[in-house]
Amino acid sequence: MSMGNSSEQLVKDMLAGSRLALARLITKVENRGADLPELIRILYPHTGRAQIWGITGPPGAGKSTLVDRLASKLRAEGKRVAIVAIDPSSPFSGGAILGDRIRMQRHSTDEGVFIRSLGTRGKQGGLSHAAKEVVLVLDAAGFDVVLVETAGVGQTELDILQLAQTVLVVLVPESGDSIQVMKAGLMEIADVFAVNKSDRPEADQLLRELVAMIGLSASSVAWTIPVHKTEANRDQGTDALLKAIQRHQAYLSESGARQKKTQAFLRREVLDILNERLNQSVLRSFESPEGREIFDQLLQRKLDPYQVADRICPK
Amino acid sequence: MSMGNSSEQLVKDMLAGSRLALARLITKVENRGADLPELIRILYPHTGRAQIWGITGPPGAGKSTLVDRLASKLRAEGKRVAIVAIDPSSPFSGGAILGDRIRMQRHSTDEGVFIRSLGTRGKQGGLSHAAKEVVLVLDAAGFDVVLVETAGVGQTELDILQLAQTVLVVLVPESGDSIQVMKAGLMEIADVFAVNKSDRPEADQLLRELVAMIGLSASSVAWTIPVHKTEANRDQGTDALLKAIQRHQAYLSESGARQKKTQAFLRREVLDILNERLNQSVLRSFESPEGREIFDQLLQRKLDPYQVADRICPK
Repeated sequence: MSMGNSSEQLVKDMLAGSRLALARLITKVENRGADLPELIRILYPHTGRAQIWGITGPPGAGKSTLVDRLASKLRAEGKRVAIVAIDPSSPFSGGAILGDRIRMQRHSTDEGVFIRSLGTRGKQGGLSHAAKEVVLVLDAAGFDVVLVETAGVGQTELDILQLAQTVLVVLVPESGDSIQVMKAGLMEIADVFAVNKSDRPEADQLLRELVAMIGLSASSVAWTIPVHKTEANRDQGTDALLKAIQRHQAYLSESGARQKKTQAFLRREVLDILNERLNQSVLRSFESPEGREIFDQLLQRKLDPYQVADRICPK
Repeated sequence: MSMGNSSEQLVKDMLAGSRLALARLITKVENRGADLPELIRILYPHTGRAQIWGITGPPGAGKSTLVDRLASKLRAEGKRVAIVAIDPSSPFSGGAILGDRIRMQRHSTDEGVFIRSLGTRGKQGGLSHAAKEVVLVLDAAGFDVVLVETAGVGQTELDILQLAQTVLVVLVPESGDSIQVMKAGLMEIADVFAVNKSDRPEADQLLRELVAMIGLSASSVAWTIPVHKTEANRDQGTDALLKAIQRHQAYLSESGARQKKTQAFLRREVLDILNERLNQSVLRSFESPEGREIFDQLLQRKLDPYQVADRICPK
């Protein structure tokens, strides 16, 4: 390995503005090698400045187009913008996403925009970690805003949103009461709602439903979730949406909520690292001769899970 | 406390057939007191015999009616049946569930059927543990089949389904492509599909979609997920559905998949106990004077999460 690939050198080059070093660091983080803790240690003092926005919603809601519009507007304000797109892990819902990625290439000649897709297929467990650390790299690289776009409502996607300070949920008008639950779940993570494709006839009904749900849930909350109608394709309503997100960012700073969110993220992060370490050590101990014997006794119901836990990790 | 309430005595009474002792044990498990590990130890040798079926799907799909029908048919076969209904945690999707519970009271004079609802509100974290252990009590009590009914597609619900050997996913015909993702997620957990309310015009289309998705995903799987049209209200298609579930149970035994599932459940169970214990100990250590100081350094980015993890739990 050449000197130029050491973590230390790559971070230096990245801080000096090298896009190549940035891309290599992100790949390193994605690969999750043994040198990851060292890399994070070197990066860490340079982090904590970026605004991190999460964008989620069902496939076909127009998230990527909206992200594209927001990125352009942020560029017009002189901000450096990074986009991290998490592709869904399911083989049944991929199609449109790749096209969206290609469309976003319109930014590709702009040095102030960086776009990276992370695939989830086959690394379900590691993805939320990798995504968090990719965001950390972009934060250290000095991007003002990192937009993290995820599809779906799976746990992985929700985990990833935990790192966002502001979560934008994008919905589209359509019928069917089965999405009520999804809406309810999204209510707990949304800071701002967009009703996209708002030229459709049912847009006003969806807007009314969302406002009613927010009214039910907002009694004890200092921030009332705003709902904005948008047509990302025609760039309608997107300026007001951007302002709403920026108002939320201002609210976070003024209310002290930003500090609290950061504390919760960091606590979660330390716990995740320790849980991951515990899981690996427990799975290893199941493979040892003694562990197999204990596990056999569990299968025969001679020991119960609490007793096995005590034997594997004495209190 | 009277002798009659000791765990040992309650388990004895329950094994002798006391419904009151059973109800008290379930309450004990739900309350998750300090004596829980001891209670599990006493119960454990009596467990491992029940068939555990999970039933999930969106609200309004008619799950409870279907569960009701399946329970009646199992009773007609002379089986003892327990129903555990997990009520959704969200305040936005409760309505119909309570009514369903009330309707199921038709079994209430039948000693061979036991029905228990578990509420999720406010105990998100503990619920999947509590539900697993309620099922354990019912298993020890000698029920032949435990039907675990959950609404929604949240992580808690999915966790609960991890304890089921056979998962029935109930869908209803309706429009809207936003449920594609949900369908895709369900594809990974379903062993049997029911297209309920199949008198609706779009039923055949949903059936075709599901069969196509199963075809795409089934290449390397020994069990091909069957799809059954049902009208639970009119008791149509429910006999064939019951047979499909029972075929899956037979497949599990014959293929060795049952053994593998049990091993995976138990491994997960031990890990969950240890993770929970780790989380509590880490959260406590964050509250100690030394822990606060370390956490402050993390907030100031003088330490990174990996370094903090090492200090809290030296390797």
